[in-house]
Amino acid sequence: MSMLRWLTAGESHGPELLALLEGLPAGVPITAEQIQADLQRRKLGAGRGARMKFEQDALSISGGVRHGSTQGGPIALRIGNTEWPKWTEVMGAAPLEEELTGARAAKLTRPRPGHADLVGMQKHGFDEARPVLERASARETAARVALGAVARAFLGELGVRLVSHTLSIGPVRVPDGAALPAPDDVDLLDADELRCFDAATSAAMLAEVEDARRAGDTLGGIVEVLAYGLPPGLGSYVHWDRRLDGRLAQALMSIQAIKGVEVGDGFETTRRRGSVAHDELIVGEGGVHRETGRAGGIEGGMTTGDPLRVRAGMKPIATVPRALRTVDVSTGEAAQAHHQRSDVCAVPAAGVVAEAMVALVLADAMVEKFGGDSVAETRRNLDAYLAAIPEQLRTTS
Amino acid sequence: MSMLRWLTAGESHGPELLALLEGLPAGVPITAEQIQADLQRRKLGAGRGARMKFEQDALSISGGVRHGSTQGGPIALRIGNTEWPKWTEVMGAAPLEEELTGARAAKLTRPRPGHADLVGMQKHGFDEARPVLERASARETAARVALGAVARAFLGELGVRLVSHTLSIGPVRVPDGAALPAPDDVDLLDADELRCFDAATSAAMLAEVEDARRAGDTLGGIVEVLAYGLPPGLGSYVHWDRRLDGRLAQALMSIQAIKGVEVGDGFETTRRRGSVAHDELIVGEGGVHRETGRAGGIEGGMTTGDPLRVRAGMKPIATVPRALRTVDVSTGEAAQAHHQRSDVCAVPAAGVVAEAMVALVLADAMVEKFGGDSVAETRRNLDAYLAAIPEQLRTTS
Amino acid sequence: MSMLRWLTAGESHGPELLALLEGLPAGVPITAEQIQADLQRRKLGAGRGARMKFEQDALSISGGVRHGSTQGGPIALRIGNTEWPKWTEVMGAAPLEEELTGARAAKLTRPRPGHADLVGMQKHGFDEARPVLERASARETAARVALGAVARAFLGELGVRLVSHTLSIGPVRVPDGAALPAPDDVDLLDADELRCFDAATSAAMLAEVEDARRAGDTLGGIVEVLAYGLPPGLGSYVHWDRRLDGRLAQALMSIQAIKGVEVGDGFETTRRRGSVAHDELIVGEGGVHRETGRAGGIEGGMTTGDPLRVRAGMKPIATVPRALRTVDVSTGEAAQAHHQRSDVCAVPAAGVVAEAMVALVLADAMVEKFGGDSVAETRRNLDAYLAAIPEQLRTTS
Amino acid sequence: MSMLRWLTAGESHGPELLALLEGLPAGVPITAEQIQADLQRRKLGAGRGARMKFEQDALSISGGVRHGSTQGGPIALRIGNTEWPKWTEVMGAAPLEEELTGARAAKLTRPRPGHADLVGMQKHGFDEARPVLERASARETAARVALGAVARAFLGELGVRLVSHTLSIGPVRVPDGAALPAPDDVDLLDADELRCFDAATSAAMLAEVEDARRAGDTLGGIVEVLAYGLPPGLGSYVHWDRRLDGRLAQALMSIQAIKGVEVGDGFETTRRRGSVAHDELIVGEGGVHRETGRAGGIEGGMTTGDPLRVRAGMKPIATVPRALRTVDVSTGEAAQAHHQRSDVCAVPAAGVVAEAMVALVLADAMVEKFGGDSVAETRRNLDAYLAAIPEQLRTTS
Repeated sequence: MSMLRWLTAGESHGPELLALLEGLPAGVPITAEQIQADLQRRKLGAGRGARMKFEQDALSISGGVRHGSTQGGPIALRIGNTEWPKWTEVMGAAPLEEELTGARAAKLTRPRPGHADLVGMQKHGFDEARPVLERASARETAARVALGAVARAFLGELGVRLVSHTLSIGPVRVPDGAALPAPDDVDLLDADELRCFDAATSAAMLAEVEDARRAGDTLGGIVEVLAYGLPPGLGSYVHWDRRLDGRLAQALMSIQAIKGVEVGDGFETTRRRGSVAHDELIVGEGGVHRETGRAGGIEGGMTTGDPLRVRAGMKPIATVPRALRTVDVSTGEAAQAHHQRSDVCAVPAAGVVAEAMVALVLADAMVEKFGGDSVAETRRNLDAYLAAIPEQLRTTS
Repeated sequence: MSMLRWLTAGESHGPELLALLEGLPAGVPITAEQIQADLQRRKLGAGRGARMKFEQDALSISGGVRHGSTQGGPIALRIGNTEWPKWTEVMGAAPLEEELTGARAAKLTRPRPGHADLVGMQKHGFDEARPVLERASARETAARVALGAVARAFLGELGVRLVSHTLSIGPVRVPDGAALPAPDDVDLLDADELRCFDAATSAAMLAEVEDARRAGDTLGGIVEVLAYGLPPGLGSYVHWDRRLDGRLAQALMSIQAIKGVEVGDGFETTRRRGSVAHDELIVGEGGVHRETGRAGGIEGGMTTGDPLRVRAGMKPIATVPRALRTVDVSTGEAAQAHHQRSDVCAVPAAGVVAEAMVALVLADAMVEKFGGDSVAETRRNLDAYLAAIPEQLRTTS
Repeated sequence: MSMLRWLTAGESHGPELLALLEGLPAGVPITAEQIQADLQRRKLGAGRGARMKFEQDALSISGGVRHGSTQGGPIALRIGNTEWPKWTEVMGAAPLEEELTGARAAKLTRPRPGHADLVGMQKHGFDEARPVLERASARETAARVALGAVARAFLGELGVRLVSHTLSIGPVRVPDGAALPAPDDVDLLDADELRCFDAATSAAMLAEVEDARRAGDTLGGIVEVLAYGLPPGLGSYVHWDRRLDGRLAQALMSIQAIKGVEVGDGFETTRRRGSVAHDELIVGEGGVHRETGRAGGIEGGMTTGDPLRVRAGMKPIATVPRALRTVDVSTGEAAQAHHQRSDVCAVPAAGVVAEAMVALVLADAMVEKFGGDSVAETRRNLDAYLAAIPEQLRTTS
Repeated sequence: MSMLRWLTAGESHGPELLALLEGLPAGVPITAEQIQADLQRRKLGAGRGARMKFEQDALSISGGVRHGSTQGGPIALRIGNTEWPKWTEVMGAAPLEEELTGARAAKLTRPRPGHADLVGMQKHGFDEARPVLERASARETAARVALGAVARAFLGELGVRLVSHTLSIGPVRVPDGAALPAPDDVDLLDADELRCFDAATSAAMLAEVEDARRAGDTLGGIVEVLAYGLPPGLGSYVHWDRRLDGRLAQALMSIQAIKGVEVGDGFETTRRRGSVAHDELIVGEGGVHRETGRAGGIEGGMTTGDPLRVRAGMKPIATVPRALRTVDVSTGEAAQAHHQRSDVCAVPAAGVVAEAMVALVLADAMVEKFGGDSVAETRRNLDAYLAAIPEQLRTTS
């Protein structure tokens, strides 16, 4: 039922990440520069460590795009790792001729709590965590962001624009009732170190990050993704796995470190009574509309045509400078966990990743409902669908 | 990548619901009585209206099971609707010879906010909501529960037991730090009208339900599902859509009226600092173990072997006795929404449905990791896997 | 990438077969009578044994269709088995309270060569063949035919009509260059005992069937399916598993007893030279057209818009009256195979099944390319696509 | 139900082909040299044109393999195109700043019959065939062969070995009853210009190729793939799309230019009577065995444990030196088709591609039945399954 398919490959310290996207119509305008710009957004934000600075994402397109336009076949993206020369031996694909020495080659036998390390070793029969963390690493999200940039370009041709922003960092949260960012606010958001739309909250978030850094600790938070310009009727109520909310939930929960997902007001809705929990349909001057957006633009597993709004909650980074207790599996002795990197907080980046995942799900749902082997065909089918909705059934946002 | 496939069919007022489950190994002991018992659990609870009382779920197995044991082929379940004789004309499959009359046949032109009604009409080109609500109705969850009972029987053969309970009803919530129910507590939970494990909270929940009923209003809440006895390593970190947390999130969010999903401590974790947000690995007398369960038994998208814990947040029932504002699409005039049923609260039932969805996801993940065309083969492979984990990599719960 | 999903369930001697079809747009006109008529066609033909006569397929629709029209949700079909009352004990779903006696209950320990019997027992750990043959039986094709009738109804709304006919029975084959049947010839074909379009060949086939019957032997043959009215561009060349020829090949080869599949002239093409093996594009009075149909209406894994033509080769029925050698697995001694039924030849029926499978694949490809949640929407998108093909790129058939 | 997923990307004259394979257990030994060797086999054979000589396949592994062993995550393969420097402008991903000139940049407006050209243009709305043929080209099979080499390495660890050979070129065919090649014959086969196991036939094939070349014509033929060492029970009879024969048929038919597929004796079986068409089970000294292999090692959609044998029939190359008639779509005038390359016959190469596709399907079926996150686990489960088959149910080959 998925019309778009995508696979990512590559290890954190390998030569490159690869991402293949299959099923997108022909004729979507896209350039390496656009994708590179999104990759850059993923690395922004207060709270990031040194790696984000020296590591460069070198994006190239090696299939599926010609002269700035998709061709209907699979799209192939490569994200080169500028650090690779340091890792050719430790991470090389070729069989070893002699045993490696040096710090990078040492076996990682102290699995980090909160990571895939230990379970990954149990699952695959590894005696150290290197093969696990290389793939489980959040660096893989760069491949998702690259794919998301392509999906967003397609959605843009269909009139859909996405925005992501930071709702909270640790205990610091945007006040209830604060204005939601609109598509034109994206540059403003990207310019904010926390990608927060509320200036005062952003400042408090920054103070919280600095405090955590000083304390040798880490922070999580909540991000929100909005999509404007969607037609009603993406997704479906007819079968559980066609529901768009479920598909969005999987896409968001699948992001490294995400532990909670909400659609619209989410858990807050569970505390309200029914009379004040839904979005009434109001007959006004310009037609029928919903005055509230509590449902987040999803009813019955379908887009309503109002702005889509979903959230993802990220746990604090599990590689804590004040290292957590673990076991050294080579000895069975208690030990302190390996410390692989030093970000304090990756929430602003998580917003960009979440936006990419939402874009991929929405692009898939678009092709599913409207078909099309060229973006012109998809657009034509979308327009005809909207035009065919009888006047009395139409809603305005 | 899904080894189990299931489809459900049938309308709320049609002759029956059907559920097919394909991919389960042979040799799983299952009876119609077991499934019927789960269907009965779905109808329990304070806050349910009259329909739950007169509507009977008549379960029969018409394929895939012989002499109390699965045969390796697709399993077919039918849930007869005892109300069907009243609906044969309105919901019949045969073409109409003359136009229908009577209250049941009247077109439903006042779509209910918070339901699939309006968007479903826009999407499919219907001029009334009947064809939408018949399939979008939560009655479909009976089919999921029936399938879940089969999945649970399979998991039982592999040593896995599930529990679901109510965490909150509207604003009334089980206190932090309350004990978690264990598999042996299920009868106790099912005997409680709210399926709440904390007696005092249960009483407060009941009062809340009565209050909402008197106010002509409805309530939502939060349910939690636990799974005990899982091996480490179900799901995977290697690709986004293999992550078990994502698949659980989709399964839960796909339940009608669910607006939020959490794994482990979920959104609470976003407010903690990293030093106190993860589950440290402690070397003790009996080996390595985790003292906390903050992650909900999932790390890196895989089960850790500790109890799995996930939550789903349900919005209040959208068919509010104090009817919500809508439009009559036959006239374009403002109107009050149709009122199709009168439950005040369906949260206890949602726990049973959530348990079924979790069981289906876990059963799928079991077959994916361990293969097997008979439950004996799956079990053998599971046991051999556990036995092959080196001693120093083992964890105890 | 499959937009339609379908599952079948049920055993040969169980209470019923079930078939669920998910993903079809709303608004497709369909009745139980139409489906029943196709089921009847599956039972036609010279060479069938007694079972086809006394066994009735009682078709009912229990979901997804209202007042003669699909509703957009899953469609549920049931095919009752009129012989079920004789089998309630042997095939019952309930656990046995005491051991069964009688001929029907005897364990089938002499697996039949050419059937799933022995491998099925090895695979699932069964000690007899009953659980295998009940599901492996070609009776399951009734469920496929029922689903195919629904798919064909959908295709009919899009201007596509299917025809199937018998090309050969054993060594008797329609002469090269014989005329192909057109959609209007279906009644004629169904009236022929061999479903053969060439009267002289049909007579020779009948003689061959009678000869084989006398000899206590069985026959196979080849069937061909044609589809008229397809647009160009269903399927795709962009990825291996989007190619329509591959998908048709799987669908046909998956039919019980099929051992070969051809598209267009198939293996004959392998013997031709390139200059006379393809369909040239001829510029004529009415535009560009292909004068030959060697490719069977598929180029680059896509429909060309010319008639689709595919074939399936069926081995002779494996339950041979002159029983084949096997082993009695309860003793390890040489034995003669069980003899479960007595058809001499099922090739005419196989044509009907093949037609159903082709219809399902084409319906899927239609939804994939044109989307749509109502057949009106799918049709609108199809028409707009055809209209948008520039004049100089159009072909006529 | 597919446990392995793979995507390929890249254009014929683009910078490279990419292939990603997801789902393979960890611990499979594999090197770039092994894969490169298979790529080289694809280019062998009499009948190939100049391109095969100057075009180099530069294989590199950029993910999923470390120190010669798979890591459990997606495997990423790149096949660089040494001709790319000549095509950077015509096939570049970046938007054009000014219109291109030169022969390579000329629009391909004369679609080649027998290719995807015309339909691809109709489908995607292209005004020339370049974007179609770049992806539809058989060069994409290099990516399949690379993936197949990885699948074969996995199968090798499970005791399975594959062989492919040429059965016919045009009308020249290996005589009935000729010996089948065994795994140890692969080097011999690869050394034969036609990859034919019968020396006399090989010579006749070579003469046929030379004759066709002189005549300015092209040839097709038939290839056969064998797999030795399979366990019984891969695939399944329980649902149509689990049948291994169907999955093999799709995989083979999806190869460019394949028009027919057979399992075992295929269409020949349709002409036999039942008494001599199946593989009887013979009780002999060493146990039960089948003396014939008519079914090709597949019964009921499952491997029997005897050698698997499948065939694919390839049409002659459609780019015929004596060019075929077509239309120039820029003028609507009759024209001669573009002539893109000059192979006379690609059948020997098709055997290597077919072998790769069969390897991928079998590897998938292995993971499906036996699970496993390391090849040691998969092997352990396979061995335990074989050991658990009761003695009287075992067959020997």
